Amino acid sequence: MPNNTYVIGLDLGGTNIRGAAVDRSGKLWGFRKFPTEVQKGKTRVIRNLANLIWEIQQQYPNKRLVGVGAGVPGTIQFEKGIVTRSPHFPDWKNVHLRKELALYLDLPFMVDNDANMAAIGERWKGAGKQKTNFCMITLGTGIGGGIFLNNRIFRGDHGMAGEIGHMTVHPDGYLCGCGNTGCWELYASANGLIRLAEELKTNSNINVSRKGKKKRVQSSLISPDGLGKLADRGDPFAISVFKQYGRYLGIGIANLANVLNIDTFVIGGGVLGSWGHFADSARREIRRRAYVFIGKKVDLRKALCGDSAGILGAALTVYDNI
Amino acid sequence: MPNNTYVIGLDLGGTNIRGAAVDRSGKLWGFRKFPTEVQKGKTRVIRNLANLIWEIQQQYPNKRLVGVGAGVPGTIQFEKGIVTRSPHFPDWKNVHLRKELALYLDLPFMVDNDANMAAIGERWKGAGKQKTNFCMITLGTGIGGGIFLNNRIFRGDHGMAGEIGHMTVHPDGYLCGCGNTGCWELYASANGLIRLAEELKTNSNINVSRKGKKKRVQSSLISPDGLGKLADRGDPFAISVFKQYGRYLGIGIANLANVLNIDTFVIGGGVLGSWGHFADSARREIRRRAYVFIGKKVDLRKALCGDSAGILGAALTVYDNI
Repeated sequence: MPNNTYVIGLDLGGTNIRGAAVDRSGKLWGFRKFPTEVQKGKTRVIRNLANLIWEIQQQYPNKRLVGVGAGVPGTIQFEKGIVTRSPHFPDWKNVHLRKELALYLDLPFMVDNDANMAAIGERWKGAGKQKTNFCMITLGTGIGGGIFLNNRIFRGDHGMAGEIGHMTVHPDGYLCGCGNTGCWELYASANGLIRLAEELKTNSNINVSRKGKKKRVQSSLISPDGLGKLADRGDPFAISVFKQYGRYLGIGIANLANVLNIDTFVIGGGVLGSWGHFADSARREIRRRAYVFIGKKVDLRKALCGDSAGILGAALTVYDNI
Repeated sequence: MPNNTYVIGLDLGGTNIRGAAVDRSGKLWGFRKFPTEVQKGKTRVIRNLANLIWEIQQQYPNKRLVGVGAGVPGTIQFEKGIVTRSPHFPDWKNVHLRKELALYLDLPFMVDNDANMAAIGERWKGAGKQKTNFCMITLGTGIGGGIFLNNRIFRGDHGMAGEIGHMTVHPDGYLCGCGNTGCWELYASANGLIRLAEELKTNSNINVSRKGKKKRVQSSLISPDGLGKLADRGDPFAISVFKQYGRYLGIGIANLANVLNIDTFVIGGGVLGSWGHFADSARREIRRRAYVFIGKKVDLRKALCGDSAGILGAALTVYDNI
């Protein structure tokens, strides 16, 4: 590391905690990954976080750690450092993460929603560079959103802005875990992609082989990656699933473009490997649905920082606030 | 007027141009209304605008006019003073309104979308007072939106933010004039209310009188005001229409709340007279659909400035920019 001081950025997921030292120029050092161990409860997760910080610190005994940032899925009270609720941590209710970590760490600690952190990371080093306004969309179990307006993340009245996955796109659609019906993320997340594949598998005739025999698509292949591989090989069923998926993705992006007149949408998350199979379909849908002049300007982009986006964003949030 | 200088605020509608002198404290003076005369073409509309300004000026010969602001429906390039397109003025295409008015008026002139102007007016003197973030929603022929974020109107990348009426709420719904299908304004504008009434009239059994005879709701009564009067009298058909209308209104507001985590939504426009018949239904729908913590906080309010909101906003925009 070139500098004498550094920050640690953390990305707290349902399966793993990932973290690294980040220098002032945005380079990552000493990356570490620990299992989150959600099932062992809140105290264990927080101890794992502290251990991961400690392990990274051990690698740089001659450098000074000046702060830690973390991205956490869920609704966060940014100013206070409180995780209000998190879909991956059902036992977390108004967890004062800043206070709890202070038992282990006597340094500035910032926490924000993981999609916000990814947006901040992509703007620093990735596809959102120098954009005054842009929206980061992460396609995973659900759909996360981080909205950059006038050069800063927009958090809204209570730090919960960006719940874009819960826009209603089908008033009488599927029931969502949030209590609503027809949320966008039920159709356009990675999980939505799988649901769509299952649905089309049941309803369509596409999966009939040329010899006329019913050729069932193997269930094990119905994962985002599996579907992507099928589509790579030219499988018409997989191709049609991604086309339909792109349409659903486009509906929500067109809504956001209409409301905010943002041109730049950066797409990240688990489905990104199949970008080529759904991006054009999404773009067509956006042009069709967004208000005339708005739709023409929309620039749909792949995220560039991959798994590092959240770590970078968490680190920059600390650098910007100390 | 107490001050020696004043600004004129204008509201350019499809039927009338309305304007007044506005003093620094936000009081309206010498209100005037002219027919717009859209059918006589762009040059005539602009001359009417100039005449209205002149007539207001004549009333205050000892005061000095220092600028003019106007709200215009459509997509506006605020910085340049250009009306890109306007649904009410089909012959207006990239009309440089600032330049055209300069033939008559040698003073600063600002033009913005009418819903933005209404939002600015409501924040100055009405239901949006002192709000850091709020969204003004005008329910008319379509649905207009003006979004206040971090204490200023948010215009997006090209000054077109707030096209909230064109969010898709039914992917395969009615065809909208914008080319999309299932736009929110087809269901939740004043026109949407009428469509809903027509639909329910055809499909339901509600309009069967107690004596068992089919009692057709008179077509002439199917106007927002007519329906409102019916509902006031306890008519079950009209009441059910408003209830359903409130649901549609709530869908879009829940979407906006999810995306922006804005608490305050100020509702204006032609349907406001029937507020009591649809507000609770809209609130229920918002609580049902918005993300848990977000929905609880939503504060749905009636606009307070009525027809003056746009004039006030246009005037304040000038005061803030000269």
